[in-house]
Amino acid sequence: MEQKDNCKSDSCGDHHSHQEHQPGPMDDPEEQAHFKSVVSAFFNYSVDAVRDVARMERDFSKIDPKYLKYLPADFRKSRLEKLKKAIVTNQQVLNLIVSDYQQLFEYDKLPNGMVALKPMFIKPTDIIKMRSTLKSFLRDWSSEGKREREMCYGPIIKEINEYFPVPVDPSTGERKSVLHPGSGLGRLVFDLALQGYKSQGNEFAYFMLLTSNFILNVTQSKDQYEVYPFIHHFSNLKTEDQAFLKVKFPDVCPNEAMTIDKEYDFSMVAGEFVEVYSKQEAQWDCVVTCFFLDTAHNVIEYIECIHKILKKGGLWVNIGPLLYHYAEQPNEIQLELSWEDIEKIIPQFGFEFRKKYWTDCVYTNDSQSMMQMTYNCIFFSAVKQ
Amino acid sequence: MEQKDNCKSDSCGDHHSHQEHQPGPMDDPEEQAHFKSVVSAFFNYSVDAVRDVARMERDFSKIDPKYLKYLPADFRKSRLEKLKKAIVTNQQVLNLIVSDYQQLFEYDKLPNGMVALKPMFIKPTDIIKMRSTLKSFLRDWSSEGKREREMCYGPIIKEINEYFPVPVDPSTGERKSVLHPGSGLGRLVFDLALQGYKSQGNEFAYFMLLTSNFILNVTQSKDQYEVYPFIHHFSNLKTEDQAFLKVKFPDVCPNEAMTIDKEYDFSMVAGEFVEVYSKQEAQWDCVVTCFFLDTAHNVIEYIECIHKILKKGGLWVNIGPLLYHYAEQPNEIQLELSWEDIEKIIPQFGFEFRKKYWTDCVYTNDSQSMMQMTYNCIFFSAVKQ
Repeated sequence: MEQKDNCKSDSCGDHHSHQEHQPGPMDDPEEQAHFKSVVSAFFNYSVDAVRDVARMERDFSKIDPKYLKYLPADFRKSRLEKLKKAIVTNQQVLNLIVSDYQQLFEYDKLPNGMVALKPMFIKPTDIIKMRSTLKSFLRDWSSEGKREREMCYGPIIKEINEYFPVPVDPSTGERKSVLHPGSGLGRLVFDLALQGYKSQGNEFAYFMLLTSNFILNVTQSKDQYEVYPFIHHFSNLKTEDQAFLKVKFPDVCPNEAMTIDKEYDFSMVAGEFVEVYSKQEAQWDCVVTCFFLDTAHNVIEYIECIHKILKKGGLWVNIGPLLYHYAEQPNEIQLELSWEDIEKIIPQFGFEFRKKYWTDCVYTNDSQSMMQMTYNCIFFSAVKQ
Repeated sequence: MEQKDNCKSDSCGDHHSHQEHQPGPMDDPEEQAHFKSVVSAFFNYSVDAVRDVARMERDFSKIDPKYLKYLPADFRKSRLEKLKKAIVTNQQVLNLIVSDYQQLFEYDKLPNGMVALKPMFIKPTDIIKMRSTLKSFLRDWSSEGKREREMCYGPIIKEINEYFPVPVDPSTGERKSVLHPGSGLGRLVFDLALQGYKSQGNEFAYFMLLTSNFILNVTQSKDQYEVYPFIHHFSNLKTEDQAFLKVKFPDVCPNEAMTIDKEYDFSMVAGEFVEVYSKQEAQWDCVVTCFFLDTAHNVIEYIECIHKILKKGGLWVNIGPLLYHYAEQPNEIQLELSWEDIEKIIPQFGFEFRKKYWTDCVYTNDSQSMMQMTYNCIFFSAVKQ
């Protein structure tokens, strides 16, 4: 996979492409500090996780032993040991993802030749994002996430295949181009590239960018690595084993699937969607938004940009709820529109709806949990007139 | 409804019973301060809510007007006006609930004879609880909550009716006694009392106690009052009208339903379940726990207490998930057990399961929302051997 435009290969750790240095977000000192804070959340994962284990140990020790005797004799020891082991496994994967950036941090050389990073403070919101990233492995790149992907990506792929049945023109070699802003760990971008489309992902979050780069460019074989995505919550478990679900990834290895004898057009671009794309007028055959519209401060600006960058006759495909990301952040602007409002705005920009229906999706879901969050999503496709 | 034991009539505002003063939680200065802080959240509701409206106004004003022209001309004005009107309606109801406690606070007399309370700081967690309380009106006392109650209370009532088909012994007049800790706004306690059972609710949260007292003792007719429970979130709306759903309550007025010519045994007790009941050995025919087990610091202590207070042959009926309430509070003890663990503990105390199955429930749910939280609950009944 190629990593380009606003994402310097230096900063995003791409090992497959070497472009010229273009001015990008990483030239901004504030952006560099932000990038470093995200990388530190990767390195510090186990420190924050072990703090939670210590709390659990403390709680066990504060409960009157007369109650604990109702549990199996090895209950406490067994849970804590499994937990610590799982944290180590997760940390090993996270270390690999950010291994290129260790030199950004102060560290001590230990007598055994290992290095120990100096303690860092990780923002609570970044700890949450780090743990969500672990669940995204399940969603995008594990066999356990298959049902979830079929619910979300299935209808999108079906619609694109129906509207653009020929990904590559056999005479000219020209490919239908699909842009997928908010591409997360990049599975849908990959699946579309594999079908022959010119497929580009765009992502704003370094947590996702670093991780997708690892999966797309570094992994070498199917099920090469494993993570424990659900060890951070012990609520709503039918069985304790649910918390220790081990997920292997990738279920399909991009480096194996994209054989050398065939060409693909597959790329990933870092940066905020409107900033990166608003000048690419009429350049795309298709834009895909999946759980993305609600990441906008102003969803109308997203609609404007999507309309602008599509070619005439181009297709916009959307699936998702409207869980506005900045709604709970008092210092951020958030325009919160209902679907009814958005549905009336889209045609005003010059779109004509092709399909439109409600469909249920889940997101990084533990299908065994006693708490099931289901998004009744709006699916639509719309053609630029 | 009678309000008794640990709940002084002074503190809980019961207008129907006048017991002797017994030592209770309200003799503790810390408890008094806590009670006062909850009451202040009622009085201050609109101040906190209007702050959110001001944010929405600010956000509208910061968005480039070229985007807002895609919305109906009166969109902004209409939404903000509806919102302010709904907040006033909610505040009127909340004022009635705590009207007895105005003298706890400093206030200014205005020239028009009205009073204005001095500004207060409300903890963010209390603002959230205040808004959740509004949604509980829907769950327990509105016709809109009927489906939700059928899912949660339906299986419980069915099981109690099956196990105790005769609520009142026709010869002795003795009633089968049902205790419902975590009774919230008291609908299930009321429904069981109406059937003739000796029905007692127990609740720890002043938000619930104050509000249930109002509904059970103060309301005089069906659909007498109205609230807007969903005005605090504009995410995941299919139509904006969803946010402005107006809910009338009570759908059944306790004062009307419990006719004077018939006797009932219906009471509510304030306080923490184990503290209040652990000495009432073998006094209850039935204990009902509904979305309650996970409120325990130590669920095994709850099981022990439930077993102790039941008569031999008495029935425990439970429905709920295991969303442990103290799991996210680092300074609180929280034992988090899976259902598999709990299922093995219950028989060790001397219970025999009678029924046991999984069933879906929702909790203060907007059935139209694009985000649907469903709890796959464990329902069980168990008999004390």
